[in-house]
Amino acid sequence: MKILVINAGSSSLKYQLIDMENESLLAKGLCERIGIDGRLTHKPQNGKPTYEADVPFPTHKEAIEAVLEKLTSKEYGVVDSMSEIGAVGHRVLHGGSEFTESCLVDEKCEEAIRRCFPLGPLHNPANLMGIKACQAVMPGTPQVAVFDTSFGMSMEPKAYMYAIPYEFYEKDSIRRYGFHGTSHRFVSARACEISGKPNTKVINCHLGNGSSVSASIDGKCVDTSMGLTPLAGLPMGTRSGDVDAAILQFLMNKYNYSVDQMLNILNKKSGVLGVSGVSSDFRDLESAAAEGNKHAQLALEKFCYETAKYVGAYAAAMNGVDMITFTAGVGENGIDTRARICAYLGFLGVTLDPEKNNSRGKEVEISTPDSKVRVFVIPTNEELMIARDTLALVTK
Amino acid sequence: MKILVINAGSSSLKYQLIDMENESLLAKGLCERIGIDGRLTHKPQNGKPTYEADVPFPTHKEAIEAVLEKLTSKEYGVVDSMSEIGAVGHRVLHGGSEFTESCLVDEKCEEAIRRCFPLGPLHNPANLMGIKACQAVMPGTPQVAVFDTSFGMSMEPKAYMYAIPYEFYEKDSIRRYGFHGTSHRFVSARACEISGKPNTKVINCHLGNGSSVSASIDGKCVDTSMGLTPLAGLPMGTRSGDVDAAILQFLMNKYNYSVDQMLNILNKKSGVLGVSGVSSDFRDLESAAAEGNKHAQLALEKFCYETAKYVGAYAAAMNGVDMITFTAGVGENGIDTRARICAYLGFLGVTLDPEKNNSRGKEVEISTPDSKVRVFVIPTNEELMIARDTLALVTK
Repeated sequence: MKILVINAGSSSLKYQLIDMENESLLAKGLCERIGIDGRLTHKPQNGKPTYEADVPFPTHKEAIEAVLEKLTSKEYGVVDSMSEIGAVGHRVLHGGSEFTESCLVDEKCEEAIRRCFPLGPLHNPANLMGIKACQAVMPGTPQVAVFDTSFGMSMEPKAYMYAIPYEFYEKDSIRRYGFHGTSHRFVSARACEISGKPNTKVINCHLGNGSSVSASIDGKCVDTSMGLTPLAGLPMGTRSGDVDAAILQFLMNKYNYSVDQMLNILNKKSGVLGVSGVSSDFRDLESAAAEGNKHAQLALEKFCYETAKYVGAYAAAMNGVDMITFTAGVGENGIDTRARICAYLGFLGVTLDPEKNNSRGKEVEISTPDSKVRVFVIPTNEELMIARDTLALVTK
Repeated sequence: MKILVINAGSSSLKYQLIDMENESLLAKGLCERIGIDGRLTHKPQNGKPTYEADVPFPTHKEAIEAVLEKLTSKEYGVVDSMSEIGAVGHRVLHGGSEFTESCLVDEKCEEAIRRCFPLGPLHNPANLMGIKACQAVMPGTPQVAVFDTSFGMSMEPKAYMYAIPYEFYEKDSIRRYGFHGTSHRFVSARACEISGKPNTKVINCHLGNGSSVSASIDGKCVDTSMGLTPLAGLPMGTRSGDVDAAILQFLMNKYNYSVDQMLNILNKKSGVLGVSGVSSDFRDLESAAAEGNKHAQLALEKFCYETAKYVGAYAAAMNGVDMITFTAGVGENGIDTRARICAYLGFLGVTLDPEKNNSRGKEVEISTPDSKVRVFVIPTNEELMIARDTLALVTK
């Protein structure tokens, strides 16, 4: 079966068409500036040329129509007709506490996505627009929602409850949800496959522009660093990660910021960008650090230090760790970052092999054969995970 | 030399008189309801009776006068005259980044305490009132300020900087300071003394109504869980500890809380009180949990879990740990709490001896002889630490 994977944002839509016979990518692309004007980039993987042009996208519906047109076209296509697409898998940010796994889209599912608008105000409405557009353009093709939060649903209350009045959990669903769940799920499942042993304890470091760490046993989430929102946990490209909540009081009272202005600073102007004043991009930071920029050096140092602390914390959460995995942009390509993080972890029995670690973007074991904890780079593939979930649900 | 140790709050003043010949306690007591009406409790340690009565305390000055009167009185006294008191040591909450250690009170020191009013708005003004009262009543007796924050001054920027715009550090001194510093300093120094080895890595769990964890090497702080304020880190009696900052935005927008109302909830109505709905007192929680109260059970479980995670994080921060110490009310007396925390730490090589752990309030090694990491209960004594600093400074 061929499955179309959709990640719809408020003004953009990313897609991949995957052939599940051999899990191969047939085409991928991006619709941008939806509702503004519109631009389509379509990349067939069968040798046909890339298509890139302005295309009017008044709504997500026209974007999906254009994608389907290109997927089936003579010049840029990869399938003969739309009927070859057996199902559509949608990335949905927030499933609240209702979805412990992916689900076929029906009225109940749509209603739940809507109920989670307050928890994912930027993403959930856009995700639902993507679903509605596909329903309109591809009636009869099953749609599946894959939630970024469902991985976190196996956490115990000691991990997901905040130490705030209990009523905020009951009335307002305030809890740790965790994000990057589809990526953590993909990588931890692959780690368990490599390990081949039951009850494998994995700590996965998803390090990129957004970053999070998860602890899992047998692929089931035990704890994860993002919280109610993706702001918490590690310092990120522009997000602060964990801060003393009293900082908000201090700065809001001093500068008369509204809470929304304050959160905008913490979400958009903080992280390694805020510390360095240079960039949110780790390649820029590494260049600046190499040229002697002290703030860039500090930003990188802090990022590695906080990541290592989360690894230590999660080793405690599971009373041990069998495998540490690195994934996403910085995790897969940040040779120096991985080395610096692992330098803190000798106490766990981690021994890095610097030569094996000298690798970018591919699956590789980077620890020495006698390392007590095995360390891997495992490239993530959220789209494939979404396609796998979709296939499993539509063939059940 | 005999040293008077003062901990002045806005409407209270605790004191101890310590004979530094043998570090013995001569008397201790408490002035309450200063500025309201006034009550004095004075406890000589030489067999004389306790004095407890309403005494008018319009200001801290009258409170200090009453303390000195009792310390030198026939019926309740422990010294013949005020001249036997060689110096006064004051607990001061916040020394900002200026004080890496304790200091003799002079104009420069007073000015610095004043400059830190915004960082310690509840405590620093009261601490200074205590100092001014002693200067008025005991002119010529040297006064020493011992800062709760000075222990944290040995942290590196990667530990004390938040991942927020750098200007907030430069302009507003926003950084991690850490608190309970005098207690962490006392216990980690004692741990190093017991260890007898150089570069001893200690993780100290100061667990009480306020709780914090510190990592130190050779008694020098490497990291600590409280932050800009004592709100951050572990869940506490009524304080939330670490939360996703976006929770503030969500609740403030939904309930129209001001940031001060929100912080009041996080400081006063959260922590184990907020989760349990029962009490901020761990003894009450243990009773309720034993009777089957699920929320009380969760509060205790979460407290132990988060403490264990900090221990793991700090083992990473130092790439190892030689000793784990428990101190303060819950740390010294919470047999079950210690056992539950250590149950997460087998991966570090911690093996608890349940019989040795069955002990309250006294110094004892609670790990087995073959435990790779030694675990101790070490009762804290902030007043003695303050007196030691005071003696060192006035005899220098």
